[in-house]
Amino acid sequence: MSSDTNPNPQIETPEISKKAAKKEAAKLEKLRKKQESAAAAATAATAELSISDPLVGNYGDLELQSDSVTGRKWTEVKSLSPELKDAEVLIGGRVHAVRAVSKKMGFLVVRDGGRTVQCVVTVKPDLVSEQMVRFSNSLSRESIVDVVGVVSVPNEPLKGTTQQVEIQVRKLYCVSRAAPVLPINIEDAARSDIEIEEALKEGKQLVKVLQDTRLNYRVLDIRTPANQAIFRLQSEINFKFMDILRSMGFVGIHTPKLMGGTSEGGAAVFRLNYKGLPACLAQSPQLHKQMSISGDFMRVYEIGPVFRAEDSFTHRHLCEFTGLDAEMVIREHYSEVMDVVDELFVALFDHLNENLGEELEAVSRQYPFSPLKYLRKTLRLTFEEGVQMLKEAGTEVDPFGDFNTETEKKLGALVREKYDTDFYILHRYPLAVRPFYTMPCHDNNNYSNSFDVFIRGEEIISGAQRVHDPVLLEERAKACGILVDTITSYLDSFKYGAWRHGGFGVGLERVVMLFCNLNNIRKTSLFPRDPQRLAP
Amino acid sequence: MSSDTNPNPQIETPEISKKAAKKEAAKLEKLRKKQESAAAAATAATAELSISDPLVGNYGDLELQSDSVTGRKWTEVKSLSPELKDAEVLIGGRVHAVRAVSKKMGFLVVRDGGRTVQCVVTVKPDLVSEQMVRFSNSLSRESIVDVVGVVSVPNEPLKGTTQQVEIQVRKLYCVSRAAPVLPINIEDAARSDIEIEEALKEGKQLVKVLQDTRLNYRVLDIRTPANQAIFRLQSEINFKFMDILRSMGFVGIHTPKLMGGTSEGGAAVFRLNYKGLPACLAQSPQLHKQMSISGDFMRVYEIGPVFRAEDSFTHRHLCEFTGLDAEMVIREHYSEVMDVVDELFVALFDHLNENLGEELEAVSRQYPFSPLKYLRKTLRLTFEEGVQMLKEAGTEVDPFGDFNTETEKKLGALVREKYDTDFYILHRYPLAVRPFYTMPCHDNNNYSNSFDVFIRGEEIISGAQRVHDPVLLEERAKACGILVDTITSYLDSFKYGAWRHGGFGVGLERVVMLFCNLNNIRKTSLFPRDPQRLAP
Repeated sequence: MSSDTNPNPQIETPEISKKAAKKEAAKLEKLRKKQESAAAAATAATAELSISDPLVGNYGDLELQSDSVTGRKWTEVKSLSPELKDAEVLIGGRVHAVRAVSKKMGFLVVRDGGRTVQCVVTVKPDLVSEQMVRFSNSLSRESIVDVVGVVSVPNEPLKGTTQQVEIQVRKLYCVSRAAPVLPINIEDAARSDIEIEEALKEGKQLVKVLQDTRLNYRVLDIRTPANQAIFRLQSEINFKFMDILRSMGFVGIHTPKLMGGTSEGGAAVFRLNYKGLPACLAQSPQLHKQMSISGDFMRVYEIGPVFRAEDSFTHRHLCEFTGLDAEMVIREHYSEVMDVVDELFVALFDHLNENLGEELEAVSRQYPFSPLKYLRKTLRLTFEEGVQMLKEAGTEVDPFGDFNTETEKKLGALVREKYDTDFYILHRYPLAVRPFYTMPCHDNNNYSNSFDVFIRGEEIISGAQRVHDPVLLEERAKACGILVDTITSYLDSFKYGAWRHGGFGVGLERVVMLFCNLNNIRKTSLFPRDPQRLAP
Repeated sequence: MSSDTNPNPQIETPEISKKAAKKEAAKLEKLRKKQESAAAAATAATAELSISDPLVGNYGDLELQSDSVTGRKWTEVKSLSPELKDAEVLIGGRVHAVRAVSKKMGFLVVRDGGRTVQCVVTVKPDLVSEQMVRFSNSLSRESIVDVVGVVSVPNEPLKGTTQQVEIQVRKLYCVSRAAPVLPINIEDAARSDIEIEEALKEGKQLVKVLQDTRLNYRVLDIRTPANQAIFRLQSEINFKFMDILRSMGFVGIHTPKLMGGTSEGGAAVFRLNYKGLPACLAQSPQLHKQMSISGDFMRVYEIGPVFRAEDSFTHRHLCEFTGLDAEMVIREHYSEVMDVVDELFVALFDHLNENLGEELEAVSRQYPFSPLKYLRKTLRLTFEEGVQMLKEAGTEVDPFGDFNTETEKKLGALVREKYDTDFYILHRYPLAVRPFYTMPCHDNNNYSNSFDVFIRGEEIISGAQRVHDPVLLEERAKACGILVDTITSYLDSFKYGAWRHGGFGVGLERVVMLFCNLNNIRKTSLFPRDPQRLAP
C-alpha cells in the first residue's frame, strides 16, 4: 500500500516557463498512454471473470444510470461503529487501498467523507465466489464502489483505518473505475512535511507532492483530509459572515462585475470589450456598494469574486478571489464600522473554534499551527501608536507612508508580545496611502478615518469612512489622479442626499489562510487564478 | 407636495439609440446647471440666516465627519408610536417632503426604512427661532437630517404619513443636502400604473417614470418602497438558499469566473486577454462545480455572477446575473436531485410567505400580483406528458424539440387548470435540446435524465444528471460540436473515479421576478447589465 513509487514527482517552480509547460504536457501524454493500456488490460481481465458464475449478480460494474428508485439507504462510513455488529449495511465510497491476499481473499479499504473502513472479500459458498474476489482485487485505487456487507468487530484494533469495524462483503459493485495510474496518490498528497523529514532521518525517501503538481491535478489534491477541511472551514466562514451580518440588519446585495471604464481607476484591471464599449472587471464592489447605501439600503453586504490583473507573485495574492464586503450608514463616527468588524470576527472565530474542531484538527495534522489568539474585545491601536511601538523597538518608519509586509509582521509580533493577541485593528491611517474615497480625519487632514485589521501580522481587512460629499469626493478623485469622467454615475449618486457611511472588505481566502496559519493562499482557493495559472 | 412637475419625463424606448443617448446627456447637463444654481442660492440663503441667533446651536449643516462618540441612540421611524408620547427622540432620515406654512411654522416629513413621520418646526421662545424655521423650510427633498424632538399625538389621524405621531422639533441638523432639483421624484417612482390610469379618468395627468429613466437614476429609483422590498426579498432568497442547502449537507464553494478557452464551448461568452492567454468569463459554474464533486465535496452549492454575451432583448435576459447553483452525488437515480429542488423551493416559498409579508405587500401595492400557488409536494410531469397535454389542448409540438416561450406559457396555464399549481417540474427532456454533459435516459437515448422547473409558465431552474463516464462524455462533447481541447482538464477530472452526480442552476433575479409576477427582470437586478446597458 506504500505509494513511494509515485510516477510523477515534480520539482516546485516559482514560475512555469513555456519549456516547463511543454515538459508537463509531454509527461501528461505519457501518463495518459500508460493509463489507457492499463485500463484496457483491466477491462479484458474482468470481462472473462464472470463467465459461468452463478453468483454473477453479486458484483460487477454498474451501468451509468439506473431506472430504479429503490429507496435503499446508504450508511455513511463515519457512522460505522461496533454497535452495528452483525447488521447488514450498504456503503458507497472510494477504493482507498486494495490488498490481494490470495485467490480466495482480498481486502478493500473504502473511504467516504475522509473516514476509512476495511472490507473483507473472502470466498464463501453461495455468497462470495472466487471470481468476485478476483473482481475486487482488480479494482484500481480511487474507483467508486457500492458495498453491501455485514459489520464485524475484529479482536485486534485496526491501525490502517479510521473505523474500528470491518465489513464482510456480500455484494460489490463498481460505479466508476479510476485510471490505474494516477498522477497523484492521495496518501502522498495528505502527507505532512514533518512525516517526510522524519522518514528521511531513517533513510526513507517519501514522495512529496509539490504545490504546482497539486494544482495541476486539483481534483485529486482536494480529496485529502486537510483540503476537505480547508474548504469546509471556508464554506462556514462564508455562511456565518452572512448569518451574523444579517442578524445585525445587513441586506445581501449583488453588484455588477462588468463595469464601464476602469473600475475604481487605480489598480490593474482586466479589460474587455462589452458590445463595443470599453469595459473592465470590477476590482471590488466598492463603488456599487456605496451607491446601494445612497439608495437607502442602510446596511449591505456582498460576497462575490473580485478581479486583480496585478502581476503579484507572492504567497498572498491572486488574480481572482472572493471578496467579503460590507457597507453601512454611519450615524456619527467611523468607530461604528470598527464595532461591526469587532463583533463579527470574534463571533466568526468563536464559531470555528466551537463547531469545527474536527476540520481544524484535520488541517493541523498536515499543516500544524497554533490556535489564533484573539481578545473578547478587539484591540484598537492608532497608526501613530503603531509607528511609536516600532520606533521603540528600533524600527524607524515614515509616519505618513504605508507599512511594508516586513514592518507589518514586526508590528504584529510586538502587539502579540504586549497584548497577547494575533488579531487587532490599526486605525487613523495616513490619508496619502488610502484610496480617493477615504474620509480625512476631523482633526488632521494628514490622517484618515480608516483602518486595517491584522491576523498574525498580515493585513486581512481594509475599511474606512467614505467621503459622502460630492464636491469633496470629486476633489479627492482629481487629487488622486482618477479620470473623473469614468466614474460620473458614482459621483452623481452622492448629489441626491448621501448618508455618512463606511465599510470594509475582506478576502475570504486570506481569512482561512491566516486563521490556520497556512503559508500560501493557493491552498485556500479551490481553483486558483494567478498570473501564471488559468487552469484547471 | 405634488410632483406632477417632474422636470424629466421620458418616453420608454426599447433600444437607446446614439441620438437618444446624446439627448439624454444634454438633458442631464441642463439638469446639472439647474441644480448648481439652485444649490448656490440655497447656500447663500442659509448662510446669513444664523446671524445673531442665540439658538444657532440647535440647527444647521453638520460637518462631514465627527470626532465624537456620544453614545446617543437613534430611534427608527417605524418604532415611533403613541406609546412614546412626550418622550424626546432622535431620528435620522431623509426629507420626504417640506411644507413651509409661514415664517413661524413649517412641516418636514422624514422618511426612514420606508416609514414616514411628520415633524413640526414652530417658533417657541428659547427653543425654536424664526431662523430655525427658515432653515427647515430651505431643506431640499431627499436631504438627510438628524431630528431631535418630542413625540406628540395629534387629535386627527394623519393621512400623509405612515406613523400616527408627530415630532415637535427641538433640534434639526442637515447631514447632507440633496440637489434642489432631482431627476426623479420618489413619489413618482413609487406610483402604480393603476393610480396613474385612475387619475387620468378624472382628467389628471400624473408623472409616470419609465424603465430607462429609473435605471439611469437607479440610486433614486431603489428608494421606493417596492424596490426596497424587492431587494430585501432577494437577499432573503439568497440567504435561505444557502441556509437550507447547508442543513442538507451542502458545502458552499467559489469557483473561478475567469476561464481559459471558451467556457462550456456553446453560448456567447465575454472574451478577454488573460496575461497573454485567451480567456473568457464563465457562462455558469457548471464545469467547476462538477469537478468539485469529483474532488469529493459530495454536495456543493455556489452563489455567484454568471455572464452571457448573448444579444437577447427580452424581459427575462441579462448579460450578467446571479446564479444559484447546486451539484450533488446521485446514489442511484436523478430523482434525488429533483427531491432536493422540491424540498428547497417549497421551504423557500414558505419562508417568504411566512416571514416577509410586509415586503410582499409593499411590492404588491405598486405591482399587484396574486400569491404563488404551489403544492406541498411539487408536481412532476414528464416532457412526454407535457407534449400530450398540449396536444389534447390543440397545440402540436415537436416531441424531440424544445418548447418555445409561448408553448411554456400555454403548458403552464394547462397545468394550473388541471393541478392548481404555478410551480412544477417537467423532466425527461429530449436529449437533443440539452447540453453535452447531460446523461441520456436509461431506457431511451432520445430522452435525458434532465428537468426544467417552471413558475407561472416560465422556466426558472434547469437541472440534470451529468455524464460521469469520461469516454461517453468526450463522445457527447464531440457529437455536440464542442472543441474538446478547450475542456481537457474538465474531461480529465472524470478519469480518477467519478461519482454519479447531478445538479441544477437557478437565476436569482428570475426567482424574485416570477414569485412576484413582475414583468421585467431589470426590476430585480440592482444595477442591471444588458446588451445596451453598462451603467450605472
